[in-house]
Amino acid sequence: MRNPVLVEVMRGALVESRHRGAVAVVDAEGAAVLTLGDVTLPVYPRSAVKPIQALPLIESGAADRFGFGDEEIALACASHGGEPAHVAVAARMLARAGLEAGALECGAHWPSHQPSSQALARSAAAPSALHNNCSGKHAGFLCVACAAGVDHCSYVGPSHPVQREVRAALESLTGVGLSEDQCGIDGCAIPTFAVPLTALAHAFARFGTGARMGQSRTKAAARIRAAIAAQPYYVAGSGRFCTEIMTRFGARVLVKTGAEGVFCGALPEQGVGIALKCDDGATRAAEVAMAAMIARFLPMSDEERAGLDLRLRPTLRNWNGTTVGGLRPTPDVIPGDPGLEPGETRDP
Amino acid sequence: MRNPVLVEVMRGALVESRHRGAVAVVDAEGAAVLTLGDVTLPVYPRSAVKPIQALPLIESGAADRFGFGDEEIALACASHGGEPAHVAVAARMLARAGLEAGALECGAHWPSHQPSSQALARSAAAPSALHNNCSGKHAGFLCVACAAGVDHCSYVGPSHPVQREVRAALESLTGVGLSEDQCGIDGCAIPTFAVPLTALAHAFARFGTGARMGQSRTKAAARIRAAIAAQPYYVAGSGRFCTEIMTRFGARVLVKTGAEGVFCGALPEQGVGIALKCDDGATRAAEVAMAAMIARFLPMSDEERAGLDLRLRPTLRNWNGTTVGGLRPTPDVIPGDPGLEPGETRDP
Repeated sequence: MRNPVLVEVMRGALVESRHRGAVAVVDAEGAAVLTLGDVTLPVYPRSAVKPIQALPLIESGAADRFGFGDEEIALACASHGGEPAHVAVAARMLARAGLEAGALECGAHWPSHQPSSQALARSAAAPSALHNNCSGKHAGFLCVACAAGVDHCSYVGPSHPVQREVRAALESLTGVGLSEDQCGIDGCAIPTFAVPLTALAHAFARFGTGARMGQSRTKAAARIRAAIAAQPYYVAGSGRFCTEIMTRFGARVLVKTGAEGVFCGALPEQGVGIALKCDDGATRAAEVAMAAMIARFLPMSDEERAGLDLRLRPTLRNWNGTTVGGLRPTPDVIPGDPGLEPGETRDP
Repeated sequence: MRNPVLVEVMRGALVESRHRGAVAVVDAEGAAVLTLGDVTLPVYPRSAVKPIQALPLIESGAADRFGFGDEEIALACASHGGEPAHVAVAARMLARAGLEAGALECGAHWPSHQPSSQALARSAAAPSALHNNCSGKHAGFLCVACAAGVDHCSYVGPSHPVQREVRAALESLTGVGLSEDQCGIDGCAIPTFAVPLTALAHAFARFGTGARMGQSRTKAAARIRAAIAAQPYYVAGSGRFCTEIMTRFGARVLVKTGAEGVFCGALPEQGVGIALKCDDGATRAAEVAMAAMIARFLPMSDEERAGLDLRLRPTLRNWNGTTVGGLRPTPDVIPGDPGLEPGETRDP
């Protein structure tokens, strides 16, 4: 099966580039509400499952023990931009557990937030693991280990008690047995297990609604959702899709990006979870496709719709600020979306 | 027609992402040597045609008048990283024509070469148009205008004499009438005309061999090729594909990257031009596909082949430096390439 084109990149009157992919929208019972393309092929969810990976932090009592509030819990679910506030909260989480940045095993990289990266360069400092976009998740892992009194060394390894807890939470919510032969190593060194998009969407339907989980897990998921809704800046950062969308829609939308074109989310009031992947790994297209699912399934005001449209049909500008094109979802993704201009060819 | 998967991105034992695209290899007579996918669809060549866009700089006599050597001519063909040496040569080109950076109409952006960008941030300076990856091409355009004694204002516009010269060179080499209704605005503000990959490959076969062009154009193309072969650092920069490949193979290979997954090139001794585009606009896959065409058509030593393999099957590492996967061409691109591992699925 070949996946449909989900998103087109326009320049002038022509389609310049095309992004194929698959989308699953599933309810908490596991029933498919919408599928596009092959939703049965296992895909690595990468960072898109961070909210689920944060469940042990709450369920173990570690978050309470270290006095974590919304900022810390949101950062534990984050792919953040390495802005100073992100770095400060990650450092605070570690300090509460009596640890320093050296305990992080995620590796270091320059902040993806360009002004923060430039400011760091100006200060003549090199980035540390605290600037890694996953530092909040890793700080959370370390806190789980410390609260349980287990050695935190090699906490990124698949056999460490923390990763076993994380894996169990993913297996329980996806309903899929995770397999070592469908396991890769993520950018931040932890295991990433491939699962079908339908199972990821099912997991997010459960996580978003609290349905079909044990009572303590329902409560833990609610606490994570509330933290993210209260502090969406700490899940991504300035100018970022996840932060902007959840700032706009509050607790009505949960969205989380992952590397290589994966996006997961939930619309709690609609009772559905969403999981999608662009075949080619493109974040720009995954964002448009996720915006399209929100536009399609979430009732909203005209003002909200106009705001969402900036992410649904983002404009491309050149270095002089001139509009040269833009991205748009195809009619496969949003039926009735404005059609082709004369002379355009959509997909040969 | 749906284009084949050209490049796969592996993580662990699975294909994580897939890049589709089309490839044309054509000789100077215009005969197709190899085609993959739809090579008749017009695509914007973007920066991949910069060596052809530099022809008026030589043919007009401007390069001679201003005393340009290999560095200046190579930079006129460049998508450079904004390294200090690139910026210095662009400034020198402008100075020879009595101009300053303010004459450039390409817009400013931070250097893509990260250490140069960080050094610029440390110096508390903001980027200028000289740091724009196209500043050498634009400096060349300005020199053409100045040498001809025409007003250089709005030299980026389609009706300016410089752009009319550039367009005429492209029409002549591609053999295609360029059309306003298949024209977009490039990132650096000049027009980009969509043409089929077969026509782009034909243009590069002519450019690379000097065949099927007038005598003065044959000489001009040879001068540009010699400049690029002598100074490949000025066409891209440190760590970049074009610079590395042409440093390795010298005048036997001409390659030039373009935005949105386009790559053009020529193998002069084999008498062929190459043009390819990844549907999704991914540079990482376009590089692998171009490396595959070189591997397939250029005779080379074992040592050269081992060097090329680093670009044909590049390794992906995480932030700790651990190998987590890599890219590879599919058997559609290189028949007989190592097959799938047990349990892998290539394309559902």
